[in-house]
Amino acid sequence: MAAPILSERDLEFMLYELFDAEGLTERPRYADHSRETFAAAMKTSQTVAEKYLLPIRSLLDNSQPTFDGEKVHQPEELKTAIDAVIESGLASTTADFELGGMQLPGIVASAVNAYLSAAGGVAMGYTGLTNANANLIQAHGTPEQIEKWVVPMREGRFAGTMAMTEPGAGSGLADLTTTAVKDDDGSYRISGNKIFISGGDQNLNENIVHLVLARVKGAPKGVKGISLFIVPKIMVNEDGSLGEANDVALAGLFHKMGGRAQTSTALSFGENNGAIGYLVGEENKGLTYMFHMMNEARIMVGTAAALNGLTGYQYSLDYAKERPQGRLLSNKDPLSPPVNIIQHTDVRRMLLTQKAYSEGAYALCLLGSQLDDDYRTAPTKEEREAAHTLLDFLTPIIKTWPSEYGPKANYLAIQVLGGHGYINEHPVEQLYRDNRLNPIHEGTTGVQSLDLLGRKVPMNNFAGYTACLTEMAKTIEIAKQSDALSGYADQLAEAIVTLKKTTETVLGATQSMNLDAAFSNSVKYLDLFGHVVIAWLWLKQGIVADNALAKQPHESDEHFYRGKLHALQYFFRAELPEIYHWAKLISDLDTTNFDMQEEWF
Amino acid sequence: MAAPILSERDLEFMLYELFDAEGLTERPRYADHSRETFAAAMKTSQTVAEKYLLPIRSLLDNSQPTFDGEKVHQPEELKTAIDAVIESGLASTTADFELGGMQLPGIVASAVNAYLSAAGGVAMGYTGLTNANANLIQAHGTPEQIEKWVVPMREGRFAGTMAMTEPGAGSGLADLTTTAVKDDDGSYRISGNKIFISGGDQNLNENIVHLVLARVKGAPKGVKGISLFIVPKIMVNEDGSLGEANDVALAGLFHKMGGRAQTSTALSFGENNGAIGYLVGEENKGLTYMFHMMNEARIMVGTAAALNGLTGYQYSLDYAKERPQGRLLSNKDPLSPPVNIIQHTDVRRMLLTQKAYSEGAYALCLLGSQLDDDYRTAPTKEEREAAHTLLDFLTPIIKTWPSEYGPKANYLAIQVLGGHGYINEHPVEQLYRDNRLNPIHEGTTGVQSLDLLGRKVPMNNFAGYTACLTEMAKTIEIAKQSDALSGYADQLAEAIVTLKKTTETVLGATQSMNLDAAFSNSVKYLDLFGHVVIAWLWLKQGIVADNALAKQPHESDEHFYRGKLHALQYFFRAELPEIYHWAKLISDLDTTNFDMQEEWF
Repeated sequence: MAAPILSERDLEFMLYELFDAEGLTERPRYADHSRETFAAAMKTSQTVAEKYLLPIRSLLDNSQPTFDGEKVHQPEELKTAIDAVIESGLASTTADFELGGMQLPGIVASAVNAYLSAAGGVAMGYTGLTNANANLIQAHGTPEQIEKWVVPMREGRFAGTMAMTEPGAGSGLADLTTTAVKDDDGSYRISGNKIFISGGDQNLNENIVHLVLARVKGAPKGVKGISLFIVPKIMVNEDGSLGEANDVALAGLFHKMGGRAQTSTALSFGENNGAIGYLVGEENKGLTYMFHMMNEARIMVGTAAALNGLTGYQYSLDYAKERPQGRLLSNKDPLSPPVNIIQHTDVRRMLLTQKAYSEGAYALCLLGSQLDDDYRTAPTKEEREAAHTLLDFLTPIIKTWPSEYGPKANYLAIQVLGGHGYINEHPVEQLYRDNRLNPIHEGTTGVQSLDLLGRKVPMNNFAGYTACLTEMAKTIEIAKQSDALSGYADQLAEAIVTLKKTTETVLGATQSMNLDAAFSNSVKYLDLFGHVVIAWLWLKQGIVADNALAKQPHESDEHFYRGKLHALQYFFRAELPEIYHWAKLISDLDTTNFDMQEEWF
Repeated sequence: MAAPILSERDLEFMLYELFDAEGLTERPRYADHSRETFAAAMKTSQTVAEKYLLPIRSLLDNSQPTFDGEKVHQPEELKTAIDAVIESGLASTTADFELGGMQLPGIVASAVNAYLSAAGGVAMGYTGLTNANANLIQAHGTPEQIEKWVVPMREGRFAGTMAMTEPGAGSGLADLTTTAVKDDDGSYRISGNKIFISGGDQNLNENIVHLVLARVKGAPKGVKGISLFIVPKIMVNEDGSLGEANDVALAGLFHKMGGRAQTSTALSFGENNGAIGYLVGEENKGLTYMFHMMNEARIMVGTAAALNGLTGYQYSLDYAKERPQGRLLSNKDPLSPPVNIIQHTDVRRMLLTQKAYSEGAYALCLLGSQLDDDYRTAPTKEEREAAHTLLDFLTPIIKTWPSEYGPKANYLAIQVLGGHGYINEHPVEQLYRDNRLNPIHEGTTGVQSLDLLGRKVPMNNFAGYTACLTEMAKTIEIAKQSDALSGYADQLAEAIVTLKKTTETVLGATQSMNLDAAFSNSVKYLDLFGHVVIAWLWLKQGIVADNALAKQPHESDEHFYRGKLHALQYFFRAELPEIYHWAKLISDLDTTNFDMQEEWF
């Protein structure tokens, strides 16, 4: 039997035991849903993933997209698969019923999409970005823009992109130079070059809706003068039919180490008369709008990284259970038959680490989705605002921790397979390559760490930070009631004390110290905070497992819950204690990194 | 200007300041050499690397070797490059003059080969394995075997491989099933399947000499019944001319994630009448002979991993110096021009980490080469034995630490380049893929950790272990004399106390505890020991730099030495303290990994 893409049992645990996805059906928006409709959507997704995506995972990886000067070429099978995703409704899991969507809660949609993402990797980036693009226009566009662009995207006829990065401005959006000049008819002419635009050209959809950041002539310099435009690849007539090509040219395709199912493009806007673009919202507010999309994209990135880790874990687990090799150290008979490698302690370590990283990371991502659901649909304004505050705070961690630890999990998946992990007969090497993009795009780890420490922590008088600590304290209180968990509760409480002290020290230092020096270890701070948050999510999982075990579940469930408690133990013993060294480095205000001089390298 | 492959200044530092390569010219074997001949060889290597290997690095990566059922195909340019390496004498840097070699000390040969390895990656595996194979036959073969096989390998006409791994026996050599049956003429008939044989077939050499592990019919089971055979691809006549094809068939090529310049093959021996093989040495002693080659290969692997890290470091450093983006946090003017990214503290962190990992790792590998030189050519028997003891002890660390931390350096090289690091326009993504094999082949990290903890540490009444600690203590005594270094000396001394306690605890526990449980954290032990050893090598480098700075060198040297001291500072502040958590986990005899049950996953 082939390795499962994901553990069904674990997804159920996450949705219904760790989080209360079923409870969301009490909210008006989800009133037509039930656990049965959720399960049906997940089953559909699993089926589509197994039938269309998994069989072409390797094909897509081996088919680096090509451009013949006119058209982009990707395997036919990709279009078939994406069409199957769209036809089964899986491309618009969260969209309104009236727009043809499933109107699922975000947390359920995450689990539904999980199969597609784990099996198809970035192939799902096409529909994911399209969704995020449509959501942005729906939130900030005019009714006409929604009709013209969002509807065909929801239908899967059009695709969407986000076009931010420029050759001279990646992480530094302040320096972007693409210009927009207003025309008499109210539209704008866009000129400039964008790079690394995922899905910027492809042969899967009738049309592509680029969301482009550009400066209107005369706008302020820096980030305050950036506007957002809808720039279609092909113009759309009043009646919705396609018109002429817009002045958007594919300048080239990038050849990526992984994630080859999705094109990465260089686009030239306005090489001739200027590409026609339509302003979204008001001038100079483009970055604010885009940040909405970026926050959504950041959670998508974290989620993809976690799922990549999870599916590699399942694969290597399956392999380890079936591959005989070597004998136990404690076996004194060299002539006894070899054992399956899962019997070797170090193989168990590698599997357990993958489990702890990936399930911890995915739980965090689902928490993000749940908070987003609450932000949109919680009954009271207070609840909605509280969810938004916490989600906004956690976003750099949700984006980064899974992105950094997902690849570490994939590294171990390869290692479990040994030499077999390094060849393309098995998917783990591809997962390792695919996942390497995640610490880079949508804000690098370094950028996220500065966002967390310099912005999100002190923001609104530490509102998000405090909310996060308060939530963790609640979990600790509950865990303290259990004999099995009180030790972990104490450990987490102690870690939080250290986290707080470290935060105070480093932010206090910014009063008197050069900011670049004080934030010398910002990435360690993000790692520290991330580890504490993941430990918290493991403790939450432990509470569920501990309660479930008290009810004497049947055997397979008992094994499952014991596995959860054991992964919790692993994380608290092997991983969480790492933070003390990081905390010391940060609190010591160690400026080794800052002090290094260019000439000394 | 393109990024340098390696830092010339650093290679000089390593050879002549950190180690005393020049002093080796006082030994008879190297009496014809001088610093000038060493420099000439290095210059030749750099030239060949830049002219032949660097320009085809990407080509080879994009040309996954193919097999048309008859022949293996690799780009013509590879043969041109390898021929250039052989013609310039660089394929046999350590071989005797009379065999056409350069007769260089191993430590100098390592630095000479460094350019080729850093520029050509595993392309140099062809000549490296050939060398190791020739060295083995030279050590254990008959004069006739040397004449027949070693001479053409030294000349570059024949290539060599090591054929150990089988489909059912990777790390577990005890289970290998390839058989050998003695013929009337004294030769053997070999039958069996081997996989992952690097260079097992190719189109670069006239012939290939496989060194094959097999069991003679009736031999004991397990590792005690393994013999070693020379099995040529093509038979060689008495006069040295090529005869008929031997019964060795290429069953297939593996498609690797990286390192594509070198074929990885599945070979079938004896599908027809049995492949003709010639016993090396005595029956059932094959593994002992092979271990000589494996030890050499292990140092080669560590060295390749370190060089891969070094060349990625140089590339990302060069990029960071020239790529403008963003502003310093401390710059309050958002409209000021962007700075080069090397100005950003977190980019410096990523460069400094690469420097600390890669230069530390390479210093360790050079120490290994120096010990090997001493083992072969030191004046007294005591010195030779002492060198051998220490080298034998350090081998699992030399193999593993660079293999684990080299890829981490490459990870950061990608991250410095951001999105540009993920595409094949820049070599860092290739380096990252290439380097991923190193923690796997020639004994995985897990296998090495058990070799260290279970074998090398207690071996010969702790002789190697004690020798290692003694060497470190000497360095500490010297460092204590310096104001700049005494703090680091104390830190290392403290780390060693912890290492010793940890060692005693875990080995003590094996008296009463299940071995698989006691060694539950063997990989952490290897990491711990590795970190201490690398810290030691940084302290050694610090002593040299500190002394040099006292002599007020000219400006560029001053910068160089300050960089060394700063990387030392980085390693001692950011890295070395990690060991205390690992030590605690090991000393607590934490059996979380061991206790995890198969059904709980």
